[in-house]
Amino acid sequence: MRIRNKPWADDFIKEHDHIVEPSPYAQKGSWRQLFQKEQPIHLEIGTGKGQFIAKMARNHPDINFIGIERVKSVIVGAIKKVKEEDVVNVRLLNVNAENLCELFADDEIDRIYLNFSDPWPKKRHAKRRLTYHTFLKQYQQILKPEGEIVLKTDNQQFFEFSLVSFSQFGMVLDEVTLDLHQLKDPENVMTEYEEKFSEKGNPIYRCKAHVPASR
Amino acid sequence: MRIRNKPWADDFIKEHDHIVEPSPYAQKGSWRQLFQKEQPIHLEIGTGKGQFIAKMARNHPDINFIGIERVKSVIVGAIKKVKEEDVVNVRLLNVNAENLCELFADDEIDRIYLNFSDPWPKKRHAKRRLTYHTFLKQYQQILKPEGEIVLKTDNQQFFEFSLVSFSQFGMVLDEVTLDLHQLKDPENVMTEYEEKFSEKGNPIYRCKAHVPASR
Repeated sequence: MRIRNKPWADDFIKEHDHIVEPSPYAQKGSWRQLFQKEQPIHLEIGTGKGQFIAKMARNHPDINFIGIERVKSVIVGAIKKVKEEDVVNVRLLNVNAENLCELFADDEIDRIYLNFSDPWPKKRHAKRRLTYHTFLKQYQQILKPEGEIVLKTDNQQFFEFSLVSFSQFGMVLDEVTLDLHQLKDPENVMTEYEEKFSEKGNPIYRCKAHVPASR
Repeated sequence: MRIRNKPWADDFIKEHDHIVEPSPYAQKGSWRQLFQKEQPIHLEIGTGKGQFIAKMARNHPDINFIGIERVKSVIVGAIKKVKEEDVVNVRLLNVNAENLCELFADDEIDRIYLNFSDPWPKKRHAKRRLTYHTFLKQYQQILKPEGEIVLKTDNQQFFEFSLVSFSQFGMVLDEVTLDLHQLKDPENVMTEYEEKFSEKGNPIYRCKAHVPASR
């Protein structure tokens, strides 16, 4: 979903520079001070239209949320959701998530959310999956010791791949569920995609993993 | 499924002491020499009616197989299957699998199979699950370094529990599949239960894990 030129989106993003951080790379190491309250930071990679991050921010005022979304026309939707929820503890970054270590200092992030990431089903595209070991290496670096990764997906193969990839990297699984909505977790906040998909009765997979402090 | 007194089963087992090892605890540390050929040992815990172990033994003459089954009337079926397949690389043990370290010396086993183990769904019975950490500790001890555990089940909650339990114990996942028969693995040998269950179109879960040598 590459969108080449969307001047209206550019303008909309610029008008909301209190939500979309205009110079994200300059904030490396000082994200904590950017928010009104200094508190743990949870990072969502691939924020999409923003329902998850906006609702999570409303439900958890004691957490600061950062959402990365590279597609301009999509992040516009997330800006609208953040405005609707009227929350001050969210920043959105309109960047590619490929170089997280240039965006965040070591140990700067407390938790990472991966929600319905592109599964890149072809084997030759495995490197692009957000749970490929090169990404895990970056997560390990920016997460504080014992920091957690929470992954949700509807894609069976991507979930299988991710469990093995986490484990082989040396991460420890804290939860695996093969049917999230069967659990009826009251803390679960659904993404737009998750809502549509689970209405059809299809299972949602979730796992939680952490990097052991000893690594 | 406790069977109190089955004299006919006792007799049948005694008549087949070339298949059912009569003094299994005395063999600790010397299982390798018990078989016709000295080669790797694969252990199945909960052999049931024996279709898996008998067919595996036929397919893999370069492996020696040991199957544990505590229920006398059930192991009788396994004896019959081993005879049908006419294989010499199987021994059955009519014992409880609770004290594996009294049956096997350190590093004596090359691989462990857990096929459709009792899921013990109630939380207060978690200790009885064959992937509870007290069992994993025994597997770690009797498995050689990098030795593998292969688990198959149709029980979602038991599978979720086992993945987390393996990981938290420090084992590494090498494979996770949420629909084994979709994979069409030509190496897969079905148990009796698996055949019936998958005919109904229900998914079979499988995972492979190993204990890292460095532990």
